[in-house]
Parts: sequence; C-alpha cells; structure tokens
Amino acid sequence: MYFDDLTVGYTFDTGTRTLSEEAIIAFAREYDAQPFHIDAGAAAQSIYGGIIASGFHTLLTAFQLTLEAGVWNEASMGSPGMRDVQWLAPVRPGDTLRVHARVVASAPSSSRPDRGRTEIAYDVINQSDTVVMRYTATHILKRAPET
Amino acid sequence: MYFDDLTVGYTFDTGTRTLSEEAIIAFAREYDAQPFHIDAGAAAQSIYGGIIASGFHTLLTAFQLTLEAGVWNEASMGSPGMRDVQWLAPVRPGDTLRVHARVVASAPSSSRPDRGRTEIAYDVINQSDTVVMRYTATHILKRAPET
Repeated sequence: MYFDDLTVGYTFDTGTRTLSEEAIIAFAREYDAQPFHIDAGAAAQSIYGGIIASGFHTLLTAFQLTLEAGVWNEASMGSPGMRDVQWLAPVRPGDTLRVHARVVASAPSSSRPDRGRTEIAYDVINQSDTVVMRYTATHILKRAPET
Repeated sequence: MYFDDLTVGYTFDTGTRTLSEEAIIAFAREYDAQPFHIDAGAAAQSIYGGIIASGFHTLLTAFQLTLEAGVWNEASMGSPGMRDVQWLAPVRPGDTLRVHARVVASAPSSSRPDRGRTEIAYDVINQSDTVVMRYTATHILKRAPET
C-alpha cells in the first residue's frame, strides 16, 4: 500500500510471536544486559519478581511483526522518528505478542510531490489482551504511482 | 549513581562504537529487513544512495554504549518509556557513534519513597560531530541508600 491508501483511521493487525526465556535472555545479553532481563535470581528479587523482556526486544518484535504484515513496506522511504513510546506492562517468558496499528495522521509533502508523512500508532498486545507497549511512528511513504 | 546524584543539568559521555557494513546488514536482516538496510544495489537506488543502518540499530548501539558507561545501572528499576525519538541523519557503514547524555528532569516518586523518575536526553553523535539521533528516556531510579 502507498501513502494515499493509508488514510487516517485505517487499521491493520499483525501475526503473533512468542518470546521464549532463551530468546529474552539472548537479546538482553547483547543489547540490554540489566539483571532483571538476564539473571533469573536477580530478577526474582527485583520489583518484577522474575525475568522480563527488554523493552527494546518488545519494540523490535513489534517492528518485525509489522514488516511481516507487509502493509506499507513497498512504499517505505524510512522514518524520521517515533513519539510517546510507552512500556505499560511487563513482557514475561512465554508471552505471545501481536500488534494493532492505526493511522493517526497523514500529510502529503509540501516540497516533494512523490511522498507523504504518515503517523501510525502501534499497540503491542499480549495473549491476555493487555496492551504491553504503545508507540507512534512517523513513516515517509511513497505516493501511489500514476496509472 | 543513584536518583539523588543525577540532578537536572548533569551530563555524561559514553565510549564509541563503529558499525561495520556486515553488522549493519546482519542487524537489519533480523529486525528491519528493508532494502535500504540490507541490499547494496537497492540502497544505491534509494534516496539514501547506499546502505544505511536501521534506526533501531543506532538506538540499540546508543543504549549499549550508555550501559557500558555505567552511570545509572546500579539504580535502574526499568523505564516506562521514551519520547521525541528522532532519526536526524543517516548512519552509514564505518560510522563511529558516541552518546552525550543530559539529565533534563528529575522528580522523586510521591507514592514510593525508595525511587524517583529521571528524564535523560540522549544525543547520538558520529565521527563528524553530527547528531544522527536524539531521544529522551524516562528512567525509574533507586534513591541513594541511607548512610
């Protein structure tokens, strides 16, 4: 889909992915090696009461799922940023995540007629329908080719 | 350092990390497999004129460098979120990144006397002193132990 197809209010949903304890620890060892992500003993003593996924692991899983949904890929020219990134509830080993996305803003470029800016709010939801994470990303998307 | 040490205006700097083309492509194949991150030919034809790092790769490199700086690790109880995540300039193979951090807000918890909220603005800077990325994270930090 192109910029012109993703009008405000358009929604889409992704597939799911389950995060194993092994995957959570492996990700965190590399990118976010805080004790409550990598050390079961320390995590049990923390405010979380056990290992939780790095928030970046949740974010990147959501992004993987979004790319796999294949909604805006063909039009993507990259992103200038994200806002209001919120980690709302812990993600624990065995949790299954999915993403619900909603277009919240859309504006054609004033200087470049081939593209526009699309803001999409992403909710990351677990198997109990709890929203564990939320963020809004701006995408630069190609306009539909002239036909 | 603890919540009480990281007062508004406190700054710190991290070490550096260089992103090789191999690392950029490997990261993006897993987490952000868009053509301008993984395919030299497609990237050359894109608006970027060559492979650029996934913005998530830049973000996670900045976070690795921040953890390695060891400033707030001991006090960290996790993060409720980030705001104003901005990708300002492309990161290309061979670029060397560092982070400059500045405490921009600090408030003790009104309900929990053992912790506070600290907002830190992170600038990710390349070898030409260009700010390639910027974000502000909220950290929940333990207060200094009573002595």
